[in-house]
Amino acid sequence: MIRVGVVGGTGYTGVELLRLLAAHPEVSLSVITSRSEAGMRVADLFANLRGHVDLAFSNPDQGGLVECDLVFFATPNGTAMTMARELLEAGVKIVDLAADFRLKDPALWQRWYGTEHTTPELLGEAVYGLPEVNREAIRRARLVANPGCYPTAVQLGFLPLLEAGLVVPDRLIADAKSGVSGAGRKAGVATALCETSESLKAYAVTGHRHLPEIQQGLAAVCGHPVGLTFVPHLTPMIRGIHATLYAFLTGEPLDLQELYESRYRYEPFVDVLPSGSHPETRSVRGTNQCRIAVHRPQGGSTVVVLSVIDNLGKGAAAQAVQNMNIMFGLTERIGIDQIAVMP
Amino acid sequence: MIRVGVVGGTGYTGVELLRLLAAHPEVSLSVITSRSEAGMRVADLFANLRGHVDLAFSNPDQGGLVECDLVFFATPNGTAMTMARELLEAGVKIVDLAADFRLKDPALWQRWYGTEHTTPELLGEAVYGLPEVNREAIRRARLVANPGCYPTAVQLGFLPLLEAGLVVPDRLIADAKSGVSGAGRKAGVATALCETSESLKAYAVTGHRHLPEIQQGLAAVCGHPVGLTFVPHLTPMIRGIHATLYAFLTGEPLDLQELYESRYRYEPFVDVLPSGSHPETRSVRGTNQCRIAVHRPQGGSTVVVLSVIDNLGKGAAAQAVQNMNIMFGLTERIGIDQIAVMP
Amino acid sequence: MIRVGVVGGTGYTGVELLRLLAAHPEVSLSVITSRSEAGMRVADLFANLRGHVDLAFSNPDQGGLVECDLVFFATPNGTAMTMARELLEAGVKIVDLAADFRLKDPALWQRWYGTEHTTPELLGEAVYGLPEVNREAIRRARLVANPGCYPTAVQLGFLPLLEAGLVVPDRLIADAKSGVSGAGRKAGVATALCETSESLKAYAVTGHRHLPEIQQGLAAVCGHPVGLTFVPHLTPMIRGIHATLYAFLTGEPLDLQELYESRYRYEPFVDVLPSGSHPETRSVRGTNQCRIAVHRPQGGSTVVVLSVIDNLGKGAAAQAVQNMNIMFGLTERIGIDQIAVMP
Amino acid sequence: MIRVGVVGGTGYTGVELLRLLAAHPEVSLSVITSRSEAGMRVADLFANLRGHVDLAFSNPDQGGLVECDLVFFATPNGTAMTMARELLEAGVKIVDLAADFRLKDPALWQRWYGTEHTTPELLGEAVYGLPEVNREAIRRARLVANPGCYPTAVQLGFLPLLEAGLVVPDRLIADAKSGVSGAGRKAGVATALCETSESLKAYAVTGHRHLPEIQQGLAAVCGHPVGLTFVPHLTPMIRGIHATLYAFLTGEPLDLQELYESRYRYEPFVDVLPSGSHPETRSVRGTNQCRIAVHRPQGGSTVVVLSVIDNLGKGAAAQAVQNMNIMFGLTERIGIDQIAVMP
Repeated sequence: MIRVGVVGGTGYTGVELLRLLAAHPEVSLSVITSRSEAGMRVADLFANLRGHVDLAFSNPDQGGLVECDLVFFATPNGTAMTMARELLEAGVKIVDLAADFRLKDPALWQRWYGTEHTTPELLGEAVYGLPEVNREAIRRARLVANPGCYPTAVQLGFLPLLEAGLVVPDRLIADAKSGVSGAGRKAGVATALCETSESLKAYAVTGHRHLPEIQQGLAAVCGHPVGLTFVPHLTPMIRGIHATLYAFLTGEPLDLQELYESRYRYEPFVDVLPSGSHPETRSVRGTNQCRIAVHRPQGGSTVVVLSVIDNLGKGAAAQAVQNMNIMFGLTERIGIDQIAVMP
Repeated sequence: MIRVGVVGGTGYTGVELLRLLAAHPEVSLSVITSRSEAGMRVADLFANLRGHVDLAFSNPDQGGLVECDLVFFATPNGTAMTMARELLEAGVKIVDLAADFRLKDPALWQRWYGTEHTTPELLGEAVYGLPEVNREAIRRARLVANPGCYPTAVQLGFLPLLEAGLVVPDRLIADAKSGVSGAGRKAGVATALCETSESLKAYAVTGHRHLPEIQQGLAAVCGHPVGLTFVPHLTPMIRGIHATLYAFLTGEPLDLQELYESRYRYEPFVDVLPSGSHPETRSVRGTNQCRIAVHRPQGGSTVVVLSVIDNLGKGAAAQAVQNMNIMFGLTERIGIDQIAVMP
Repeated sequence: MIRVGVVGGTGYTGVELLRLLAAHPEVSLSVITSRSEAGMRVADLFANLRGHVDLAFSNPDQGGLVECDLVFFATPNGTAMTMARELLEAGVKIVDLAADFRLKDPALWQRWYGTEHTTPELLGEAVYGLPEVNREAIRRARLVANPGCYPTAVQLGFLPLLEAGLVVPDRLIADAKSGVSGAGRKAGVATALCETSESLKAYAVTGHRHLPEIQQGLAAVCGHPVGLTFVPHLTPMIRGIHATLYAFLTGEPLDLQELYESRYRYEPFVDVLPSGSHPETRSVRGTNQCRIAVHRPQGGSTVVVLSVIDNLGKGAAAQAVQNMNIMFGLTERIGIDQIAVMP
Repeated sequence: MIRVGVVGGTGYTGVELLRLLAAHPEVSLSVITSRSEAGMRVADLFANLRGHVDLAFSNPDQGGLVECDLVFFATPNGTAMTMARELLEAGVKIVDLAADFRLKDPALWQRWYGTEHTTPELLGEAVYGLPEVNREAIRRARLVANPGCYPTAVQLGFLPLLEAGLVVPDRLIADAKSGVSGAGRKAGVATALCETSESLKAYAVTGHRHLPEIQQGLAAVCGHPVGLTFVPHLTPMIRGIHATLYAFLTGEPLDLQELYESRYRYEPFVDVLPSGSHPETRSVRGTNQCRIAVHRPQGGSTVVVLSVIDNLGKGAAAQAVQNMNIMFGLTERIGIDQIAVMP
């Protein structure tokens, strides 16, 4: 059994992580910390965990984390970087669900996140936890930077095209639609049901923090920078991301359907749908699945890729567990093979 | 492994049953029938089952059902009664999720369901599958009538009060709120998102088919008929039933909290919340759980019981699997111990 | 033209009031105050008002209110009582949408609202603004206490039964379902879409502030105290209240349908539906309408009344405008005769 | 008063049209036809119209239409073309909300709509009813083809860029998101709340009927064909379209904000938001408004235009009334100047 700790389990990625870990057959959930809720029983905050999680939140200073085999950070950006060194030195592996170790360039971090990076020396070691790209590095990693939700959906959708060099790399467009849980569990007027239900809007068109993360990932695949326009939208649902991706072919293409199917044939969590399909976000809700369809409307030069994930699943907590499974040599599907609840 | 067949797997109770059975460690899913969809792969109809269920729908006449150990009927009312005898005679156990075998009195069936009952001779043998009342009989049953969704929520909420004889039995009120999936998966204007979202209404106030079923169950507990006013409401959500129950105390009561806790102490799927609580339907979504809170506002003579279930879970498919587990001597929780996805 | 001021126009009752007043042909909107948003253009906070309201929020200390003919308070509880005297003395009429002047007994205020009432001497003069009960008094009033949302729906539903003395007065039950906007426009986790969508729960079963208000109103009609159990529920929609009311007949009743129709025949905003109907909250959304249906299930001794309003319409802002229309001798329908947007 | 008839008032564009016409001060609603609902009172089908519309549906053969000054067709595609000639000859003006007269080329109609066009001789006379482009022609028209919902949002968003010749005309992308009411009021599983709530998907990526309509409109503005990729999405809300438009600049542009503001300065129903804004669909719900924001992310060569309308408002019924107002020389805003209900 892997002794697991969770730092900051009071947000939506936290509760999703606890749901998965509580039922994971190889995990012993040892400690869950929260400064704000220390002392409260976890199941009193999240009623779905009644009868499944018996722990109370503890103060991170009270210890317990260094005795773990692995610690997940489900904290706001900027927290994991202050605690990572000590844990790593104690032999604890880390999966950070926040953005602290995603960007390789600390200057880029500072530009987009507004604070200086306090442990830039760990950025080189940190492995970007997208298993479909970095599985082998993840297997050997001590410190995994779990990808953001939009970056997961967008990168998995664009990868086959960019790896094959089939499209104009500086006119990529990612029009992404997210459920409200992507904004986190926090008190705010903007995420109230009365403000977000029965409405839809784009946001952060001038620049979203996931843009540099996606650009970094796509550039690594291409071997050169890419030009990407990324427009996120807030949609009236709790969970789900639908990324609609547009790219322009440079020539007469291969069979795109075959390209995608062969790229992801052995991936346990990427499901390429039959030609002509339109994936629904609900079909992956609560799961670690990414479902993809590739289209070439009217046989023209524009490729349209539809990529759906659960922003809290493959886009956060379930992918974090997938990374843990890889880091500890477990069957990759274990504990994250749920079927989406439909309807 | 229990060889299981499902008759009529194209509705919402059907897909929920398939989700549970596909992941059940003691079940081998052998045959799924549907006249209308015969030949179609199940996972082509329900995308959440891609990679989890490889079967295609078959015509019920093509056989396969009699080779099963147990057959679930997830059919419209009136179908199971036409096929039950043959299966029972072949040694196949049955759990019927429709209403065919719920009412003991065939005349009552005819009055509320509008057709003559074709196998009244099986009504005596059929066991009403509410484990919290009939566990021993279910264990020995060949034919289990799985309770309706409203009847499950309402009976579990009223049982402790009626068993203890604490309330006026002819002034019971059950104000129940259901998600739209309770109306089933069918083409109709009335269940369209545009008709049901952002609205709420009562329906069938003059008389709902679940009324005689609830009355029969409560009368069995009391030993005499009960007077019940039952008002169902359609609410803008997919899943969930919230039953708000009102009863009038006949005298100074026991400690009601203690009464409920002791009644359900050993029930794996009934969770009595701490005093003062308000259960949320989302906390049981996708699960077999019933969560209950009992209140006595301002210390007066009215008891208010709040009882929540998932109408497709404890109110249908998951309870059907619970019944199967009991009928085959399995651990009762096996395959239906999911944690609700929150948020 | 009536010069109108609004104190505290940043909440949901505020924006609804502004929507109605901006289009009201007899109103000149003169001043809108908000301490927190002073200086901001109203249409920058509420995009629906772009092109319709040109004012900016001003600080209440900057004046302008005393020059008004009428001031609406759309403030938190406890604000209007601190400003009412000065305005009344300046000859300004007041409609308070908060609870400050609803309860006649200052001790009851203190018990339920937790603070001492600072102007109890105005409670005698204040008129409870339910036009269907107090139209003549409203016509002559300087200070109108606009009813709460639940109290409007519940009182209008019970009135005919209680006025006619047909039911047991101490076993009334009001099971009420509200949209989330009833909780107001405020930063909070509890009203987030992720917490309230796709779920339903009761709340405040032990005692809600609208209980004494309803009891006071019903007692006034009966001439003696009533026993009422009131259970509010939070439902996954923005607007709407559905009150399901239960009462027990004391004898063989009159024709209840005729009773309701004749009671409300001349009321412009109470619509008694034909026998056997089930009103939907969406049919009154954005309007000042109350729609009511009365049932007697299975011809028994329980009466079930279904009463729907828009909690921000007839339950708040539109009823406040109705009161204004009455206070100034205008046609009662003017400015509040909208048709609900459906679907 | 304009005597108005409505053919086919039982769908969502029908009820929205009736809501607007019932309150329009210059309209006398004379006849509403429906073969399927003939004899039923309109207010019995649409509860929001109770007290506002006293008519019953009549059979179109019963007459009444030829006595009208104007007839709206809110019928399925293919109906108006069978009745238009007779009405025009009787001197009745027509606004068709379906697609019958939108495409100028009858072959294109046949390709996309699957039937032969029966009155191609009227296509030349029919005016495409987008007032922001064709106001003068609408003023003189007998027969107006009211634009589709997507085409309205997309064309209004692209127009200033294309008129000014600033972008590559063959790499236009329109990623559009629609509420479910766009699919109409019909019995079907696909539009059920249980199928569409809490989910999001693209559809018709291979080709949607609104594509040729948009291409025709944009080509007319450019003077040459355009290359457009159009991807519609179904989103979990009742009303609203959000079109997110992408185009690539051919050179260093003018001030785009100024371009849009000056193009629409005198348009009563197009509202260009301040620089940096993100329009919300709810801000135009129930109205004839189109709200637009124009962005140039990171100052690059991609322009992003955000354009929102109510698909049943400016995208259907309200725009139809706008066209009527123009055809009869009325103030253009009359009867369609509502403020959106928020929240």
